[in-house]
Amino acid sequence: MNMESKFANLEVGYDVPAVPGMDAADIQTPCLVLDMDALERNIKKMGDYAKAHGMRHRVHGKMHKSVDVAKLQEKLGGAVGVCCQKVSEAEVFARGGIKDVLVSNQVRDPAKIDRLAKLPGYGARTIVCVDDIANVADLSEAAVRHGNQLECFVEIDCGAGRCGVVTSGDVVRIAKAIDAAPNLKFTGIQAYQGAMQHLDSYAARKEKLDAAIAMVKDAVDALKAEGLEPELVSGGGTGSYYFESNSGVYNELQCGSYAFMDADYGRILDEQGKRIDQGEWENALFILTSVMSHAKPGIAVCDAGLKAQSVDSGLPFVFGRDDVKYIKCSDEHGVIEDPDGKLSVNEKLRLVPGHCDPTCNVHDWYVGVRDGKVEVVWPVSARGKAY
Amino acid sequence: MNMESKFANLEVGYDVPAVPGMDAADIQTPCLVLDMDALERNIKKMGDYAKAHGMRHRVHGKMHKSVDVAKLQEKLGGAVGVCCQKVSEAEVFARGGIKDVLVSNQVRDPAKIDRLAKLPGYGARTIVCVDDIANVADLSEAAVRHGNQLECFVEIDCGAGRCGVVTSGDVVRIAKAIDAAPNLKFTGIQAYQGAMQHLDSYAARKEKLDAAIAMVKDAVDALKAEGLEPELVSGGGTGSYYFESNSGVYNELQCGSYAFMDADYGRILDEQGKRIDQGEWENALFILTSVMSHAKPGIAVCDAGLKAQSVDSGLPFVFGRDDVKYIKCSDEHGVIEDPDGKLSVNEKLRLVPGHCDPTCNVHDWYVGVRDGKVEVVWPVSARGKAY
Repeated sequence: MNMESKFANLEVGYDVPAVPGMDAADIQTPCLVLDMDALERNIKKMGDYAKAHGMRHRVHGKMHKSVDVAKLQEKLGGAVGVCCQKVSEAEVFARGGIKDVLVSNQVRDPAKIDRLAKLPGYGARTIVCVDDIANVADLSEAAVRHGNQLECFVEIDCGAGRCGVVTSGDVVRIAKAIDAAPNLKFTGIQAYQGAMQHLDSYAARKEKLDAAIAMVKDAVDALKAEGLEPELVSGGGTGSYYFESNSGVYNELQCGSYAFMDADYGRILDEQGKRIDQGEWENALFILTSVMSHAKPGIAVCDAGLKAQSVDSGLPFVFGRDDVKYIKCSDEHGVIEDPDGKLSVNEKLRLVPGHCDPTCNVHDWYVGVRDGKVEVVWPVSARGKAY
Repeated sequence: MNMESKFANLEVGYDVPAVPGMDAADIQTPCLVLDMDALERNIKKMGDYAKAHGMRHRVHGKMHKSVDVAKLQEKLGGAVGVCCQKVSEAEVFARGGIKDVLVSNQVRDPAKIDRLAKLPGYGARTIVCVDDIANVADLSEAAVRHGNQLECFVEIDCGAGRCGVVTSGDVVRIAKAIDAAPNLKFTGIQAYQGAMQHLDSYAARKEKLDAAIAMVKDAVDALKAEGLEPELVSGGGTGSYYFESNSGVYNELQCGSYAFMDADYGRILDEQGKRIDQGEWENALFILTSVMSHAKPGIAVCDAGLKAQSVDSGLPFVFGRDDVKYIKCSDEHGVIEDPDGKLSVNEKLRLVPGHCDPTCNVHDWYVGVRDGKVEVVWPVSARGKAY
């Protein structure tokens, strides 16, 4: 299907914020905009790093929820596939042609297990995490029912305090059960520490990761002693990938936010004490917003509020502008401090969202821009796929 | 189209969380659930109140973004139509058959003004807010171009510090310009105070509203003196409607959250010092969630995180349970304190979201439940319509 026919029945402003070929100035706001040059540089850079360090890179698809971005990550960044958090997301990626899909989460509901076990039918290697031996029989039964193989990672809770087991004994116990179960394969270990990714200081992150790596190493040694050497040891994010890559234990990364960046990740510091959005990664994702009221001096009101973003990790900042500041957010409005009256009605601003993942999940479309023109309009393919 | 054919091609779990007729126990999570009995009681109660006080009730559609809920509000609550915040929402309501639609917001972008001016073509009385005289000519030009009439409210900023003018002089000046402009009609005043709605104490809310009402009364008097008596004076929310209804100045309410309720609104107090979710309104909206990991004692992990809700106004609470507590939220997970180990894997819980509006905007469907059965599955028709 060519671009023209794909967008022929879509109304700009109602159905889509833009169509390919349009001037960037005509994009309807608020919407998500991708700086295609910055996005491609980020993807290539992480891909080159992973390759140089002999790591597989399984990109985190739950961040962007986009088959198109995942394919760009395969093409330019050598990604081996995706991880994601929900069966419905995995369905979108598998149906969309991604050939290696990990649900980096537990799947316990019988109906969801059944859907998961169908995914290899789409041609996707399908891996799921397990943290409870009671889950093994259910997964196996569904895999047998559909005549498919499900691969399993045992999840270690290496500090997040959420899902996952905390002793190597439990890891081995569950791995053995998986190994013995029909149509299941014990493939490896999931060990991702989410909260530490956002610690500002490099040293603080290193301390947390050192502890996590020690825990994972202990589990790997215990598995080896039982003849169950894991094929994959998977984890690592934008704030930690260099630790996992140099650990000698992990062999697969799961970075997500590096591709888009956001305000919360941007402010963490690299080893030299420099913000990671000031060199390591570029801001490639923006909420494009318009000023829609300036009835009072000093205060401009823009059209991007809580329905255009998630503020769980703080407010967005206005990209490239030190003279104005996004200071308040309500359902449909953002209040922008404009002390020198620089802004005018209908002026467009690029906001860097506080937290990219849940912000992307609010929108239906990515508008990819290059050289002042709309190059692509991609659906947020797995938006709302939370089941 | 009957129910069966409407859902014939939809896959439960992938496309929809449930289909009508299903047992409530089989609903896929996380998703939004409506207690139909509670919803209908809330709608009828507010409708009866408005009628008894001679007020028009223009329900706030930006809260639920649902044509089906709006029609229920017309049917059971005597609603006269809706207000909403974006042109794309207004398009959804007008195309969906709502006959009186107010965009309670400024519309400044030329493309959006053009779309707005087409709405009367769907048979909807169309009203928009103005806070800048420079907007009047643009609105008039578009209305003339499409051969339609646009009605205008002048917006007063009565304390929100956002859009709106702050002097009666400005109100009159803009009203005159509207009155003189071809195909525009000056219809009234928009004066809604958002932030005060959420003040816990009744007395604190009354103080803010007294000031707002005085401001609006001054503007109405100034308009009357110029022969421009407003037909409608519109405002009021779930935390204030009794003040507007007894003001002698307002004649139209714009309540939204009363129908669904949420944790943030629930904790404000009525005149007797009682939480408004303990008698005045019932919780009718829930995020249905499942426990999907309980690998550690004391901590259960559920499947509703930031992608299933907005936490801008705080975390959700677990409805009807004092023994467990939702204490932490990440992208896909909620951590639930379960000190006595009461919860088990796959158990379903009803969460009352912190803030209903942006939470509804994350979901594609409402699952309406009565007597343990799924009665209706309604699309969140204007979800993502932020342009």
